[in-house]
Amino acid sequence: MTYSVAVSGASGYAGGELLRLIADHPEFDVRTVTAHSNAGQPLTAVQPHLRSYTHLTLAETNAENLRGHDIVFLALPHGASGAISAELDEHSLVIDCGADHRLESEADWAAFYGGDFFGAWQYGVPELPRTKGTQRDRLAGATRIAAPGCNASTVALSLAPGIRAGVIDERDLVTVLAVGPSGAGKSLKTHLLASEMLGSASAYAVGGSHRHIPEIQQALRWAGANAPTISFTPLLVPMSRGILATSTAKLAPGADAASVRAAWTDAYAGETFVQVLPEGQFPRTADVLGANTALIGLAVDEAAGRVVVVAAVDNLVKGTAGAAIQSANIALGLPEATGLSVNGVAP
Amino acid sequence: MTYSVAVSGASGYAGGELLRLIADHPEFDVRTVTAHSNAGQPLTAVQPHLRSYTHLTLAETNAENLRGHDIVFLALPHGASGAISAELDEHSLVIDCGADHRLESEADWAAFYGGDFFGAWQYGVPELPRTKGTQRDRLAGATRIAAPGCNASTVALSLAPGIRAGVIDERDLVTVLAVGPSGAGKSLKTHLLASEMLGSASAYAVGGSHRHIPEIQQALRWAGANAPTISFTPLLVPMSRGILATSTAKLAPGADAASVRAAWTDAYAGETFVQVLPEGQFPRTADVLGANTALIGLAVDEAAGRVVVVAAVDNLVKGTAGAAIQSANIALGLPEATGLSVNGVAP
Amino acid sequence: MTYSVAVSGASGYAGGELLRLIADHPEFDVRTVTAHSNAGQPLTAVQPHLRSYTHLTLAETNAENLRGHDIVFLALPHGASGAISAELDEHSLVIDCGADHRLESEADWAAFYGGDFFGAWQYGVPELPRTKGTQRDRLAGATRIAAPGCNASTVALSLAPGIRAGVIDERDLVTVLAVGPSGAGKSLKTHLLASEMLGSASAYAVGGSHRHIPEIQQALRWAGANAPTISFTPLLVPMSRGILATSTAKLAPGADAASVRAAWTDAYAGETFVQVLPEGQFPRTADVLGANTALIGLAVDEAAGRVVVVAAVDNLVKGTAGAAIQSANIALGLPEATGLSVNGVAP
Amino acid sequence: MTYSVAVSGASGYAGGELLRLIADHPEFDVRTVTAHSNAGQPLTAVQPHLRSYTHLTLAETNAENLRGHDIVFLALPHGASGAISAELDEHSLVIDCGADHRLESEADWAAFYGGDFFGAWQYGVPELPRTKGTQRDRLAGATRIAAPGCNASTVALSLAPGIRAGVIDERDLVTVLAVGPSGAGKSLKTHLLASEMLGSASAYAVGGSHRHIPEIQQALRWAGANAPTISFTPLLVPMSRGILATSTAKLAPGADAASVRAAWTDAYAGETFVQVLPEGQFPRTADVLGANTALIGLAVDEAAGRVVVVAAVDNLVKGTAGAAIQSANIALGLPEATGLSVNGVAP
Repeated sequence: MTYSVAVSGASGYAGGELLRLIADHPEFDVRTVTAHSNAGQPLTAVQPHLRSYTHLTLAETNAENLRGHDIVFLALPHGASGAISAELDEHSLVIDCGADHRLESEADWAAFYGGDFFGAWQYGVPELPRTKGTQRDRLAGATRIAAPGCNASTVALSLAPGIRAGVIDERDLVTVLAVGPSGAGKSLKTHLLASEMLGSASAYAVGGSHRHIPEIQQALRWAGANAPTISFTPLLVPMSRGILATSTAKLAPGADAASVRAAWTDAYAGETFVQVLPEGQFPRTADVLGANTALIGLAVDEAAGRVVVVAAVDNLVKGTAGAAIQSANIALGLPEATGLSVNGVAP
Repeated sequence: MTYSVAVSGASGYAGGELLRLIADHPEFDVRTVTAHSNAGQPLTAVQPHLRSYTHLTLAETNAENLRGHDIVFLALPHGASGAISAELDEHSLVIDCGADHRLESEADWAAFYGGDFFGAWQYGVPELPRTKGTQRDRLAGATRIAAPGCNASTVALSLAPGIRAGVIDERDLVTVLAVGPSGAGKSLKTHLLASEMLGSASAYAVGGSHRHIPEIQQALRWAGANAPTISFTPLLVPMSRGILATSTAKLAPGADAASVRAAWTDAYAGETFVQVLPEGQFPRTADVLGANTALIGLAVDEAAGRVVVVAAVDNLVKGTAGAAIQSANIALGLPEATGLSVNGVAP
Repeated sequence: MTYSVAVSGASGYAGGELLRLIADHPEFDVRTVTAHSNAGQPLTAVQPHLRSYTHLTLAETNAENLRGHDIVFLALPHGASGAISAELDEHSLVIDCGADHRLESEADWAAFYGGDFFGAWQYGVPELPRTKGTQRDRLAGATRIAAPGCNASTVALSLAPGIRAGVIDERDLVTVLAVGPSGAGKSLKTHLLASEMLGSASAYAVGGSHRHIPEIQQALRWAGANAPTISFTPLLVPMSRGILATSTAKLAPGADAASVRAAWTDAYAGETFVQVLPEGQFPRTADVLGANTALIGLAVDEAAGRVVVVAAVDNLVKGTAGAAIQSANIALGLPEATGLSVNGVAP
Repeated sequence: MTYSVAVSGASGYAGGELLRLIADHPEFDVRTVTAHSNAGQPLTAVQPHLRSYTHLTLAETNAENLRGHDIVFLALPHGASGAISAELDEHSLVIDCGADHRLESEADWAAFYGGDFFGAWQYGVPELPRTKGTQRDRLAGATRIAAPGCNASTVALSLAPGIRAGVIDERDLVTVLAVGPSGAGKSLKTHLLASEMLGSASAYAVGGSHRHIPEIQQALRWAGANAPTISFTPLLVPMSRGILATSTAKLAPGADAASVRAAWTDAYAGETFVQVLPEGQFPRTADVLGANTALIGLAVDEAAGRVVVVAAVDNLVKGTAGAAIQSANIALGLPEATGLSVNGVAP
């Protein structure tokens, strides 16, 4: 069967990545691409790397243009998808790559985003361990799915196995992430200029203000945490894509290197797209560039009493567009890996 | 039908890229991967990005291990493939990604390489215009194919249309290429260290010593040139992959902007993997990262009396491994694009 | 003696670099820094790397604020310096880092810039060979100096020695430059975003439209050319600073490797800031990062009949701010190298 | 007065940086440069960016060549300086940029390095707060100084103010550092190749094995800690130089945002080379590139109960060669900032 697909926000990075991945999906057929200021232009004028779409022109992003498709991907700024999603066909599968439908708590929404609260959809991180089963169980048959925040899902996948197994302390989690600028989108901001970023690393949202924090806490609660606290610092580093998240947690009483490793390998046993590396190996972001893979390396630092989890993810794939397509596959009953690659483009 | 495949030099960049691409090829099945100093190791210990091959171990590179496969890809240092290829099965399709079987002229070989001369195989750049037809015509049914030099094929594809159409002068061609270091392989050389290359550009093989020069001249002769001369300067720039080749040629008498553009668009009309961009557009290497696409932009500089051709290619894909697989598809009678993507991984 | 200094455009890259260099100049004292949209802010809020200026606040860029200083550096957008310079004190030394006072030919100005023509000031590239002497001779005692275009001065220094000595043909020059994005300033343009540039090379102003072309031709005429033609293609590559210019020219009849090398080594004998490398050596941009040095490597390609000149320059130092300060030193009768470093910051 | 200087390890990154900085030092005169495998070559053949030293040739690194100078800088692999330093003149000022003379504890040495233990020299981080005064007090008149580890000094400067003031808990410190590859020297290792690092981030020495850990703990004990524990994870990111260290610590009981900020601003009040940024500002490594400056940004994350300290340092300057020269200035009674710049080379 072929599913008709519309992609909104097709001129941005997430929208472009959705299109790149869908080009290899044998059952998805892109009929409509929409944008805002670039509406009316050929898609390849804005996304010159998408050579298989030379026939498409960007339409205006509005409900009328998005209706009538089997699947609608929303890759819009925060606030915009919430507004438009109410107008879409009920029976369409709608996947929001923005933040509007990720948080269950209106208080969290108000504290970190503000504006209208749209309520949570099914969270699109299939492998995420929950106290019972995984998030995958909730995606089958879903018609409304919230693709995750790229940093949030990387950290949630990093820490949830230890929370669920009780081998780490949910209090006093500390995460520092090296991230590329594409996570910030095509926004024209001085600090995102190449001149500013080439050869330089910097921190932002220091001190607990990053919007992905409540999303991480929500995911960890699903894995069994009560009131997890996390110090979360993202660093902008000069690579176009990629997240390398270093997350540390205190060992729970009684936990040791063996029980720690078992917690993670058990959680991801049999998973295609989340792989725990052997003892002593740690991932590079290049290993997952362009791939829907999360690679996780694990160590126990006995002297510091902490587990250290290093995870590499491509923010635009496993962190956004790949998660969206993988979740769509599950929702539709297709083989989960359809159209997604496990191999990174390296070097 | 499934073809059994062996990849030698699987621990290097070209070998790794062959494997990455073959993972998406529905009819190729990798049975054997070989290496030299890394023999005995799991493939993913050396190529951690190739997650779909966690089951493979590197065998020793020798004829015994490579024999018995339908297809053998050689990704070995110059000199090594020539030696081993004589020992492979006659009926196997053998594709050499090294230089040993590219040059028809023993004098050129002696001048630019030296050592044993192995003779030329069919040259693996299907779209290359020849005075009659394209190089593709010679690849159907071939059993011995020489994948091109990445710089050479990029420049040959850039200039051959103008040579064949007679709109440019074959004398006094000038090409400067910005290239990433992966073209130099994993060699441990000081100038290839990240500390040396990050934030810096440099030239090498200045003054006519680069080994790809005779390969370009050979390709241009196939397109109708007699004794083309080319000033060829490669620049190392800080991107892991990619070639951006700026090639200029003097306008032939009577040629104008229209006849120039027609020469290139005619040459590549209907091609999937070589695309001429519209007037005023020029490619970025990011547009072809990971893709088997060559993008070509074209301008006529009236004041300077020169055509300027800017071509972007991923040196490891269209420049090497993708060309090898595309040529193998043709040789075997498979759809030419099988297993190859036209879309770049950008940003 | 201490000279009072004002720097306009102090929030931009050229202005910032002037301030960085002046901080090490024992006789220049920055009293006033001006900006446009950032006026009113502490300098270090906009230029956080300039730690020796934590006491300065950006004033509005206007003639009133710039008057009354011994030296005024203008680092303003094209058109703006021409307008303001008429209002400055006659006895002040005014150095324009913009384009407004570089071109002698009103026709060139009209063709490449347009708008009001302001006329040429003394051109601030001291080492530039002229048919008699060097450009330095015209800078002593000057009160109005035009700092060069960074690409233009790099190419002019690359080719002028050969023109003056008659060892290269002035027709059919070809230059390709790998340049970093800081030459384009802090402009908020999509193609200058880090996401777009990291890992990617691209060409711009292809086909003879770059504004530095007439400036190069003017400099080559000063060295003895009549009507030089040049194919000029700049490439954006992912390094924050630096120009690596590869310039080629046809050997003049009778010229050989020895006479070619002599032309360049004679032209720059005794120069501190322009150095010709020994046979077989070619520069990296990292070698001149932060330095006021132009490094030049030279080869003769006998087969192609061309001289190849590779020059490395820091676009913000020798290409702009360093050239401005070096020229100011000469104008004021100070030792030419005051406040300027010859050593690059590498790796 | 002019001091005669010898620099050993002059072909490496630390040695090269010493020479670059000393070129601007009015009282230091480099007489001898030594190397190992590069002995006999002109210095600029190996360090082409050091244009003010075109007259120097690399001698063999041995005690004979290093003796007879007022100041000897050792920039040698671990183990080598310890061996050679015993043979140097007693009255010379000897500054070791290696690890051999940093640790006071033989047990720490044995655990993290092994081999001969050479004992500690005065530690060359002048601004480091100690329970009484600063480390500067111990450097005046010293003749044997150990320049710090670049990561260690960055973290020690980040955390020592809070330890001394009692506003943070010495247990459960967590630091993640984004570092460039030049800290690893010119070693020819696969993971340091540009192809491997461009566009990629990775972690190393995960889980408590990094050799700078005991050096940090030692410095924190000097500031008043008893038995500090630290989880320490360095990340290799694609910038040639720079350290961005994100260090977090639990707030001590009773500490609040005001007392935290006061601890750091008091500790570094009046310092030229360690500057605490205003509330809400955080440093970029580009801000200190080439400079002897450590920039520190500070936040209190109330929800996580942690102080977050972000520090930017140029690993080769403030982290190594600049620290060495600053310490030498103090030892000799020269103005501390002689020859050192506070301004970074940005963008």
